[in-house]
Amino acid sequence: MRGFGMHSVDNVGWLEKERPTIGPLDALVRPTIVAPCSSDTHVAHGGSGPKQNLILGHEAVGIVEEVGSEVTRFKPGELVAVPCVTPNWLSRGIQNFRSFSHDRGPSGSFKFVGQKDGVWGECFHVNQADPNLAHIPPDVAPEAALMTVDMMSTGFHGVELADIGIGEKVVVIGIGPVGLMAIAGAALRGASQIIAVGTRPAASRVAVAYGATEVISYKDGPLEQQVWDRTSGKGAHKVIVAGGDAATFAAAVRMTRPNGVISNVNFFDVNDAIHIAPLDWGLGMADKDIRGSFCPGGGKRVQRLINMIQYKRIDPMALISHRFHGFDKLPEAFELMDSKAPDLIKPIVYMD
Amino acid sequence: MRGFGMHSVDNVGWLEKERPTIGPLDALVRPTIVAPCSSDTHVAHGGSGPKQNLILGHEAVGIVEEVGSEVTRFKPGELVAVPCVTPNWLSRGIQNFRSFSHDRGPSGSFKFVGQKDGVWGECFHVNQADPNLAHIPPDVAPEAALMTVDMMSTGFHGVELADIGIGEKVVVIGIGPVGLMAIAGAALRGASQIIAVGTRPAASRVAVAYGATEVISYKDGPLEQQVWDRTSGKGAHKVIVAGGDAATFAAAVRMTRPNGVISNVNFFDVNDAIHIAPLDWGLGMADKDIRGSFCPGGGKRVQRLINMIQYKRIDPMALISHRFHGFDKLPEAFELMDSKAPDLIKPIVYMD
Amino acid sequence: MRGFGMHSVDNVGWLEKERPTIGPLDALVRPTIVAPCSSDTHVAHGGSGPKQNLILGHEAVGIVEEVGSEVTRFKPGELVAVPCVTPNWLSRGIQNFRSFSHDRGPSGSFKFVGQKDGVWGECFHVNQADPNLAHIPPDVAPEAALMTVDMMSTGFHGVELADIGIGEKVVVIGIGPVGLMAIAGAALRGASQIIAVGTRPAASRVAVAYGATEVISYKDGPLEQQVWDRTSGKGAHKVIVAGGDAATFAAAVRMTRPNGVISNVNFFDVNDAIHIAPLDWGLGMADKDIRGSFCPGGGKRVQRLINMIQYKRIDPMALISHRFHGFDKLPEAFELMDSKAPDLIKPIVYMD
Amino acid sequence: MRGFGMHSVDNVGWLEKERPTIGPLDALVRPTIVAPCSSDTHVAHGGSGPKQNLILGHEAVGIVEEVGSEVTRFKPGELVAVPCVTPNWLSRGIQNFRSFSHDRGPSGSFKFVGQKDGVWGECFHVNQADPNLAHIPPDVAPEAALMTVDMMSTGFHGVELADIGIGEKVVVIGIGPVGLMAIAGAALRGASQIIAVGTRPAASRVAVAYGATEVISYKDGPLEQQVWDRTSGKGAHKVIVAGGDAATFAAAVRMTRPNGVISNVNFFDVNDAIHIAPLDWGLGMADKDIRGSFCPGGGKRVQRLINMIQYKRIDPMALISHRFHGFDKLPEAFELMDSKAPDLIKPIVYMD
Repeated sequence: MRGFGMHSVDNVGWLEKERPTIGPLDALVRPTIVAPCSSDTHVAHGGSGPKQNLILGHEAVGIVEEVGSEVTRFKPGELVAVPCVTPNWLSRGIQNFRSFSHDRGPSGSFKFVGQKDGVWGECFHVNQADPNLAHIPPDVAPEAALMTVDMMSTGFHGVELADIGIGEKVVVIGIGPVGLMAIAGAALRGASQIIAVGTRPAASRVAVAYGATEVISYKDGPLEQQVWDRTSGKGAHKVIVAGGDAATFAAAVRMTRPNGVISNVNFFDVNDAIHIAPLDWGLGMADKDIRGSFCPGGGKRVQRLINMIQYKRIDPMALISHRFHGFDKLPEAFELMDSKAPDLIKPIVYMD
Repeated sequence: MRGFGMHSVDNVGWLEKERPTIGPLDALVRPTIVAPCSSDTHVAHGGSGPKQNLILGHEAVGIVEEVGSEVTRFKPGELVAVPCVTPNWLSRGIQNFRSFSHDRGPSGSFKFVGQKDGVWGECFHVNQADPNLAHIPPDVAPEAALMTVDMMSTGFHGVELADIGIGEKVVVIGIGPVGLMAIAGAALRGASQIIAVGTRPAASRVAVAYGATEVISYKDGPLEQQVWDRTSGKGAHKVIVAGGDAATFAAAVRMTRPNGVISNVNFFDVNDAIHIAPLDWGLGMADKDIRGSFCPGGGKRVQRLINMIQYKRIDPMALISHRFHGFDKLPEAFELMDSKAPDLIKPIVYMD
Repeated sequence: MRGFGMHSVDNVGWLEKERPTIGPLDALVRPTIVAPCSSDTHVAHGGSGPKQNLILGHEAVGIVEEVGSEVTRFKPGELVAVPCVTPNWLSRGIQNFRSFSHDRGPSGSFKFVGQKDGVWGECFHVNQADPNLAHIPPDVAPEAALMTVDMMSTGFHGVELADIGIGEKVVVIGIGPVGLMAIAGAALRGASQIIAVGTRPAASRVAVAYGATEVISYKDGPLEQQVWDRTSGKGAHKVIVAGGDAATFAAAVRMTRPNGVISNVNFFDVNDAIHIAPLDWGLGMADKDIRGSFCPGGGKRVQRLINMIQYKRIDPMALISHRFHGFDKLPEAFELMDSKAPDLIKPIVYMD
Repeated sequence: MRGFGMHSVDNVGWLEKERPTIGPLDALVRPTIVAPCSSDTHVAHGGSGPKQNLILGHEAVGIVEEVGSEVTRFKPGELVAVPCVTPNWLSRGIQNFRSFSHDRGPSGSFKFVGQKDGVWGECFHVNQADPNLAHIPPDVAPEAALMTVDMMSTGFHGVELADIGIGEKVVVIGIGPVGLMAIAGAALRGASQIIAVGTRPAASRVAVAYGATEVISYKDGPLEQQVWDRTSGKGAHKVIVAGGDAATFAAAVRMTRPNGVISNVNFFDVNDAIHIAPLDWGLGMADKDIRGSFCPGGGKRVQRLINMIQYKRIDPMALISHRFHGFDKLPEAFELMDSKAPDLIKPIVYMD
């Protein structure tokens, strides 16, 4: 079958691969809409090592084509959202109460692109369909459901990790789609002031629509100073990092109050070492928690996020800035993501 | 000075009392707007024992008249919101991390009406002004700030206690002002479906405006059955009890899923014993937590709630159904609260 | 194959049943040591409904006889501890962060005796061996490992649920094996004073050995009064209920301080309704949490408990009061458990 | 009155100062036993800025000499333990549920040495005696109580912050008195394996006595490698940092498993920047929480720790390696601490 991916590092293109086979717990899904993500371009450029002959993509909704003999909740023909993280629930690594993300080793629950072909093929393999897929009800647009599988789940997770209390003041660094969902999520968890950090005009408008009370820019001076100025000199209770580099991260620590949390859902570059000045971290004693996690996995998570759309608590459609029609447009969508056009938030590709 | 309160049980009227004196940490406040609460009528009818010669009222905003020698954050002439719960922060009882409500014994942090005269006088005493008062900024309506001191704080606390996860399904029992704030709070913490329980048409409309997806009534059959019917037979993840009696409470336990929480912010009648059938509680093993608390105290809490109004995350004005003008209208407002008129949600009295 | 169980309610005896067959994820285990539990006698007397032709028993260590094609962590011949709760990890019910006990409906993760034959047969079926079994290392006595699968896991869970802070004062109601493990667990989590409630002399001695600072008896007056007397009139921070009936439970609520927890790991009789007087529960507002759960499931849990033995943090051998040798002694051991001999704590049966 | 402290940076000696005066909430205490701490030498060498004419010392037990007019729990002549952290409970900064340590700004609740003279004088000032002091009961040795005010409170706090689950594997870096108490605390919270990191023979013996299962040294290779070797290649669930520098801290992050916690209670040098390599922190997504806090304040905390001694859950006396008799021996004790003699753990000075 045909798929779009990487021949090798910095060399993307069409691949011809065997159609995947499934085990008794698994499913085969035909993607109907997919969304390129900056992680895909990151991988294509070697960000997770020298991968070869790999179909890319990890955000998809689609139609179940085939299910294994033990699958009971899903059957062929059903429309499903596919979480980008699909844990092996039989692994010991998920038997703790902090996250299901690390089934075997760090980020082990991330299968697509990470451990096998991604979703940009004629069809793709889903491990453990019963716990890992989610139905899309008729009153939820598939495009909206597509936004839950990574963007909303990751952005909201930054918020959950930050443990926001009602009325707290929150900074969200980054106004890409994950940052925008973190803004929406912060509002949804009861933040009062929400300061977004970013520069792109289109995304800034969406940030405000999702609940940012103001948008500040790296260009107008040190971020921590701007945050102090806007919070009576006290800083933020919680800072969610959904973009930037190690320097931004250091600023995030600096702008956080004692008893605060710096919550990272950003993918760190392997060469970008984190550096924290002791005074910024209260000499190690200021109760500024530093946390970092990624998109929680599993079907129930995505089902609940779909419920949020269904009950009109959030509309993620404002994330979608570009639409492509046809499987053949994948290279173009990928290129758009890779070049980070100024008006880009999130592109989607209708596969049919 | 003059105040409205109870001569004795079931005997309310105007009282003449000494103007309170303050210690070095305290303040004297002149109320400008007050709001009668069902707790006031409850006390007047002997619900907290045979009290005598007691000024009632515990919800007020007002002007600081006088402060003690050690007070640094507040000064005469400032407009303040007065939390209905004002802990003694020097008490050992607050040195734990679960709540500040029980400074000495259960509910010890509730001073007005509970341990001294309430706020329906020409002025009233506030213990420990610095930690216990909150400024009202110019861009927040005093009436809105008044709604934070008990109604919003208590309703939101029911939500906090319920520990709502994003996308969870929540039932709120009771659509009085606390229940309505619990509905708004559940939406604000990321609930998807919110089923309100109540019968009054005016309050039902406000419930929907604050985020209830549906309103069900005791009159249409057993509550748990209605909830099961609306949640695919599974029940609610979390139930907030902001009204009803022991029978309603039993239904609340019944309609909650395993791993759920029943969160009570309702004042139980001393004669209304709680009964839980073992099967309803999973024979004691279903991880259905039963929690009960009341309005958290302190100035920071109310300040954060005022911030929620300031940043337009919530507008509590829809709670106010009746307005009275003049100190002399207190008896009328009290009577309205006591008779629970069908269109009543919350009355307020402008004292000038 | 032969097994000991119930023909019908109140009618136990030897059963002849088919040897179980296993699926690709499962294992077949031959028990080498088993321990009767009061839950077994409870079920035999109809406590969980009119069951028939059911092999009893849910506490076992044994030798793996056979594993399914997908099992990778265990192989025939290995000595394993078998958690009494073995969740279906592919179920959606475990995808929350509060407990893994309710895979489908309340207590759904309890399979032995609850949903299929128990462990008192020549061999027994274990669902999902990889996540659900635990190896017993050579330096841990199999008898000690046997104590982890229910008694230690359940008793410690009562402690975990109670969320004990360092230095808190704890009451443990019941000094059966679960209560004794709750005492040991409370000491292991940093309780200061630990008041045990029970009457049996043998168990009382073990209670003190495991860390109880005193043992009080129902016979010496109301429990809450005795607890108040021993805690400067303040009551316990946390109460763990591992025995008793609804009356005891009411006393537990009464003796708990505000901001406390009543943690139940006791199996409630279906006819024994819980009754809480409002004043005992602070009129619903005293922040006295009431929680009830049961033995957490899964192989990692039991592995960690075995580690506790291995690193000499706890020695559960003092629980074992009676030893029987030979499969044929099962009826005798069952009878001993059923009659609750005064010197009984926990019997075990060596199957060979 | 006379006191021992710093004339200026690197210049310690006897000072003559005014006897402190107290406000209505405060107390004056005459120290009977004090304990020098490495923080005192750190301050003396300018570690917290160019302080002058400052009496040092923050660990003391003593006799109440005088109390303010509003103090009710304590009276002259009583023997008390004085927490090294004494929050201003009237500050807004303590009205959150994460810690009481930062009443105004980071570490604001640390008054002795930090904001006023310390305890090495003829007497010293205690702010807010009622919430901040703790009685020493007759059955607890004053020397043992002295160990609670900082060493036990801080060490145990490292453990609390690490949020240890029963059976988890823990590393404690540093076997100074705080590290030793972290070891004892980890055992007391249910850790299984406890790997201590340190080199001093005397302290190593105490580490084992308090529950370390092994002691490893910086000299035997990279710490993370040694930890991996001793934990089947998996690393520790939780790491408590009670010593070392930024390089050690980086190793701590490295040796922690996904879903783990690095809990810091070490005072970072202002010049020793924290560096974390992205891969060590799972590229920001491995759920390895980094937390840093310091000794929790308040009288209830210390009272509970004293209860731990009273109920024989812990005996901190093994920390005391050196005893000095007489106020005049303070310089000698200080010098011992400053020079870090090989057999030093903790010196104390009897003031009479």
